[in-house]
Amino acid sequence: MDLWHRCAHAQSGRAGVVGVKILIIGGGGFLGQKLAHELASQGKLRDRKITGLALADITTPASVDASFNVQSASCDITDRTAVDLLLAGRFDVIFLLAAVVSSHAEAEFNVGMQVNLHGVLNVLEAARSQQNAPVLIFTSSLAVFGGDVPDPIRDWTVPNPQTSYGTQKAIGELLVNDYSRRGFVDGRTLRLPTISVRPGRPNRAASSFMSSIIREPLNGEEAICPVDPDFAHYYLSPRLCIRNLIRGAEIDAVDLGQNRTITMPGRTLTIRQMIDAMTSVAGPEPAKLIRFEHDPKIRDIVSGWRFDYDPAKALALGLKADENFEDNVRYYLQDDMEQPPES
Amino acid sequence: MDLWHRCAHAQSGRAGVVGVKILIIGGGGFLGQKLAHELASQGKLRDRKITGLALADITTPASVDASFNVQSASCDITDRTAVDLLLAGRFDVIFLLAAVVSSHAEAEFNVGMQVNLHGVLNVLEAARSQQNAPVLIFTSSLAVFGGDVPDPIRDWTVPNPQTSYGTQKAIGELLVNDYSRRGFVDGRTLRLPTISVRPGRPNRAASSFMSSIIREPLNGEEAICPVDPDFAHYYLSPRLCIRNLIRGAEIDAVDLGQNRTITMPGRTLTIRQMIDAMTSVAGPEPAKLIRFEHDPKIRDIVSGWRFDYDPAKALALGLKADENFEDNVRYYLQDDMEQPPES
Repeated sequence: MDLWHRCAHAQSGRAGVVGVKILIIGGGGFLGQKLAHELASQGKLRDRKITGLALADITTPASVDASFNVQSASCDITDRTAVDLLLAGRFDVIFLLAAVVSSHAEAEFNVGMQVNLHGVLNVLEAARSQQNAPVLIFTSSLAVFGGDVPDPIRDWTVPNPQTSYGTQKAIGELLVNDYSRRGFVDGRTLRLPTISVRPGRPNRAASSFMSSIIREPLNGEEAICPVDPDFAHYYLSPRLCIRNLIRGAEIDAVDLGQNRTITMPGRTLTIRQMIDAMTSVAGPEPAKLIRFEHDPKIRDIVSGWRFDYDPAKALALGLKADENFEDNVRYYLQDDMEQPPES
Repeated sequence: MDLWHRCAHAQSGRAGVVGVKILIIGGGGFLGQKLAHELASQGKLRDRKITGLALADITTPASVDASFNVQSASCDITDRTAVDLLLAGRFDVIFLLAAVVSSHAEAEFNVGMQVNLHGVLNVLEAARSQQNAPVLIFTSSLAVFGGDVPDPIRDWTVPNPQTSYGTQKAIGELLVNDYSRRGFVDGRTLRLPTISVRPGRPNRAASSFMSSIIREPLNGEEAICPVDPDFAHYYLSPRLCIRNLIRGAEIDAVDLGQNRTITMPGRTLTIRQMIDAMTSVAGPEPAKLIRFEHDPKIRDIVSGWRFDYDPAKALALGLKADENFEDNVRYYLQDDMEQPPES
């Protein structure tokens, strides 16, 4: 950390006034790594040349090849001193992707609060103390929505989370808004839909099947679908998610109005529609590898999730959903199947 | 504190299973004192005899006469150890009224965060560690609303605060919901309208004139109104506010559904309507003591506030607004003018 910190400072000195220095907190996760690769490929952000990229995560993230300096560091965001040291690099743009995920925050309340609430506060306070008001892109989740609210969920619908994860993310949204209003950061919160097709292996998230029923059959493996074919949910591809994160960083602050929170657009699809899309892209064989086996425990969790959204603000600001789920399937084949990420 | 703490324990031992032991955090404020007097007068809460009442505040609150044991203690809610000691009394019902108010939280960001966010977290964590899941009544504010949201503000309208105070209160609402969902407390958040006629003296709150234009003239004193007569806002009398706080404590948890937050009902009134109501109760003389003097600074603040609410959930749960502003004037004359509280 200390070495990296000094490197970051040196880099800052070389950057001059026109360059942009970027930090990804949560840079080791699958979105963090994809974002790093995309930034390396673009070479610029907010119409400025990228002069440095730092990837931080609880364990030191894999680096990426780029024309600019890339540093990796481990940082536990629950440790304020470590976060202060990290942000002493005075970044122009910070992506705050790090989080304890839904099931983990539900199982271990204290861990979720420490990372998802106090960790976010640590980053905001460290940014505030640097007094350079960085652009901060914070990822929230549609898990902030739930309970007795009418469909469709609009930009002015109350976050009414029914999980501790959703609660902590909703709190993060409020903090990013207030720290931005006060000029401590130039924040933007993006609420992510469920990402599909997610690369990698199945995990213990209740939503895991929403990628694995496509991913595993495309790889010639069997997959189990625990809900009915007419189960509907709201999806976005990793590729569009990354584009939207970058767009989120590039929006002019004045265009964000009086609320920095944006529901990232997705598409509402049934399981049947997703499978049909896979078949139209990859032929009839993969679908035969899906076995429907009811799992009441998973069904009870996911049927509480919302799928009817009207992300008007995001669309007006130039964020995009996938055109159709055939694209999601194609993006998986193009971006992820040949080179599955290490995560 | 220590003496009081032991007293509280002794009281607990005498209470038996049918009594109810109550704590008011913020018991020294004008609402806390009114609530204490009302509880003393009723002698019971949630159909159970009150067996003890503790009043805590940053300075030791005035006690009240009651048929049950009343203790007063100082407690700084930003001090977790002090809060743990306070809640070791294992109260059945806790009213959490303590807060740094709007203008203070805006002027001193750190103080607002410490009291309104970390202080509330300290109370919730202390309650959680006691494992008796007390009924917790948390006061929020209509200051959580603002920005680009359509009128009227409904139960599912997003809190979009434009002040740090509103932000901190909105975070408290989310925390009370999640700590309740997990069974750590049995929480209820009540969002208070602007209270009028507030007893006492004018203060530096931007809303101060909304009481003083009635209160001062009734006391034969001049008052300045910094906005036009057609300025509209949303009001509730102290008397109905206290009744609603008590009702909030008595609602069955199951009736609260998937969101513990309730917008307390009020009435939308223009300055002209308030003055007319005063005249109809107290004759034409008081109104002559009001001088209209534009204050652009105050107007800019208060014109950002919302006044159009549809508090359907609160009304369904038995909370009430004043019938008309004549009642607010009468309540002030009956409850407060003879004996102005020390605050």
